Amino acid sequence: MASLILSIDAMGGDAAPGVVLDGLKLFARRRADVQFEVHGRSDEITAGIEARGLKDRCIIKHHDDVVGMSDKPSAALRRAKGTSMWGAVQAVKAGRAGAAVSAGNTGALMAFSMLSLRKMEGVHRPAMTAIWPTIAGRSVVLDVGANLDADSDQLVTFAIMGEAYARAVTGKAKPTIGLLNIGSEDEKGRDTLKLAAERLREPELGLDYRGYVEGNDISTGAVDVVVTDGFTGNVALKTAEGTARLVATYVREALTSSTASKVGAALASSGLKRLKAKMDPSNVNGGVLLGLNGVVVKSHGGTDAEGYATAVSLAADLAGSRYMEEVADGLKRDTTEIGLSEVSE
Amino acid sequence: MASLILSIDAMGGDAAPGVVLDGLKLFARRRADVQFEVHGRSDEITAGIEARGLKDRCIIKHHDDVVGMSDKPSAALRRAKGTSMWGAVQAVKAGRAGAAVSAGNTGALMAFSMLSLRKMEGVHRPAMTAIWPTIAGRSVVLDVGANLDADSDQLVTFAIMGEAYARAVTGKAKPTIGLLNIGSEDEKGRDTLKLAAERLREPELGLDYRGYVEGNDISTGAVDVVVTDGFTGNVALKTAEGTARLVATYVREALTSSTASKVGAALASSGLKRLKAKMDPSNVNGGVLLGLNGVVVKSHGGTDAEGYATAVSLAADLAGSRYMEEVADGLKRDTTEIGLSEVSE
Repeated sequence: MASLILSIDAMGGDAAPGVVLDGLKLFARRRADVQFEVHGRSDEITAGIEARGLKDRCIIKHHDDVVGMSDKPSAALRRAKGTSMWGAVQAVKAGRAGAAVSAGNTGALMAFSMLSLRKMEGVHRPAMTAIWPTIAGRSVVLDVGANLDADSDQLVTFAIMGEAYARAVTGKAKPTIGLLNIGSEDEKGRDTLKLAAERLREPELGLDYRGYVEGNDISTGAVDVVVTDGFTGNVALKTAEGTARLVATYVREALTSSTASKVGAALASSGLKRLKAKMDPSNVNGGVLLGLNGVVVKSHGGTDAEGYATAVSLAADLAGSRYMEEVADGLKRDTTEIGLSEVSE
Repeated sequence: MASLILSIDAMGGDAAPGVVLDGLKLFARRRADVQFEVHGRSDEITAGIEARGLKDRCIIKHHDDVVGMSDKPSAALRRAKGTSMWGAVQAVKAGRAGAAVSAGNTGALMAFSMLSLRKMEGVHRPAMTAIWPTIAGRSVVLDVGANLDADSDQLVTFAIMGEAYARAVTGKAKPTIGLLNIGSEDEKGRDTLKLAAERLREPELGLDYRGYVEGNDISTGAVDVVVTDGFTGNVALKTAEGTARLVATYVREALTSSTASKVGAALASSGLKRLKAKMDPSNVNGGVLLGLNGVVVKSHGGTDAEGYATAVSLAADLAGSRYMEEVADGLKRDTTEIGLSEVSE
């Protein structure tokens, strides 16, 4: 008997369904207690599931339609109900699955998730997370692109959601929180940030708020949760990805620049293999749209089987955690927010 | 006879005046035609100038006071006139120097520069530049922190200034321009960006505008000039610095993780030395506050002699270029801007 069922959009991603099923196989070996409700075109997935020895672990749910990777969210929404992505999200809504995973179109997945699962009480805007490798380990950054902006109330909500999420993901009892700014002094930055900083210090919120952090503090792991608006967070995330690729190019050039360098690289291969593993984006694959009544994990569309397994593992961790209850509790402590919404509604 | 005089704030920077004078010595060897007006406490710099054989290349200007690295700009402004930083900037204002260089307090240097040199006609907000290493070579990113925000008019001004600056710095006849956004599709992003994009396409501006770029496009060198607001630009710059340091840590760990790796690293040392040189921030040291009636180059406060020489070299390149005239011409072509300011004034 499975202790947990996860719903899987088998058709989402650049190399779906092959990579998706390969990822499930990897994950299935590690967690014998998890079953999958696999959504997709049954004629395209049944043989693959059987070939990978996953028949006993999967329930196949057929859907005729698939959301294209470049479909606009608005267009995808109009024909949502026939798609594998919608099916995967609805399994969470219906309570059959503890979480859903899709490597499909990000915009469509956010739209489907919001429509199906609805926002949690007290959340005006959901936020997309990223797990960020740091010198200290891993940190959580949010919002990385669900919204274009965030006011101070929304930043406080992001902090509450991010803290509970970091606890589920990193296992730390009391994750620390920082607000991304362009200076660490209290008087610096936009008014929105100053207001949010004031609120995050309120003892009722029960957060371990550590003040402003700057862009370079993300990678050192200065705090466990970096809170920012979706525009800034998305630019930061993609800038970091680009920089890592640039440095990787430099390293490759350095280690192939001469015969001696090539021999040296061969000798250092065990260390370099570990380096490659550390730099592998599949280690940190999986973003979650926080603030909904249910967990949906977005895998990178271009990920490999290992990366997909990481995203499924994240879904399993969240489904098995007290994350939803903790966010609900945190939002209740956010009295200013509740006060405001009572007045405005 | 010197073809160019540069004014130098000898007292600014974490290891001033030693590193500053070392940097001047490096630069002086490369450019025999440049003289320096060196501002500082004469008892702290005269011997150092003589010891480095720079006596014939330097005119010493004594100032009693020094701006502290952590002084607030407002406090620094009140006692500006006795400081070496003010002296260095005023030499540009007075026309004696073609450009000034300081590794001192950034906020104070921006404040002094604006007060002394004043904004160019048509510029509402100056912008701080960064030179960014890319796979293709080097790009210019602005604003990286002179302002907290930018409206569409300001972004257009940044593009005009950045294009002329990139031409002076990279030597490219027609630098390409991109607007930093969180998606490359036209319909994405904030309204400010959409408006700016529309204006940047106007043929009268004469710019080679290539559309939106994302964070990861900066490091590939997708465009020569990346235009953004000061908050986003500063976060992106510092995030990239942090990521580069994180990856460098990983590389060091990989190459010292076993005896074989260490031997390999020793064999690959020539390639790794080139890697280290490529990753060296001193290669791209020097930011310029664009939009003033004169050139002031901000060196990183913690730079080494080589980095300081890079900043001085940037100052010399700009002083010897048609940068100021080109920006003035560009702003004249920006008719919407002129139209608006005529109405509002």
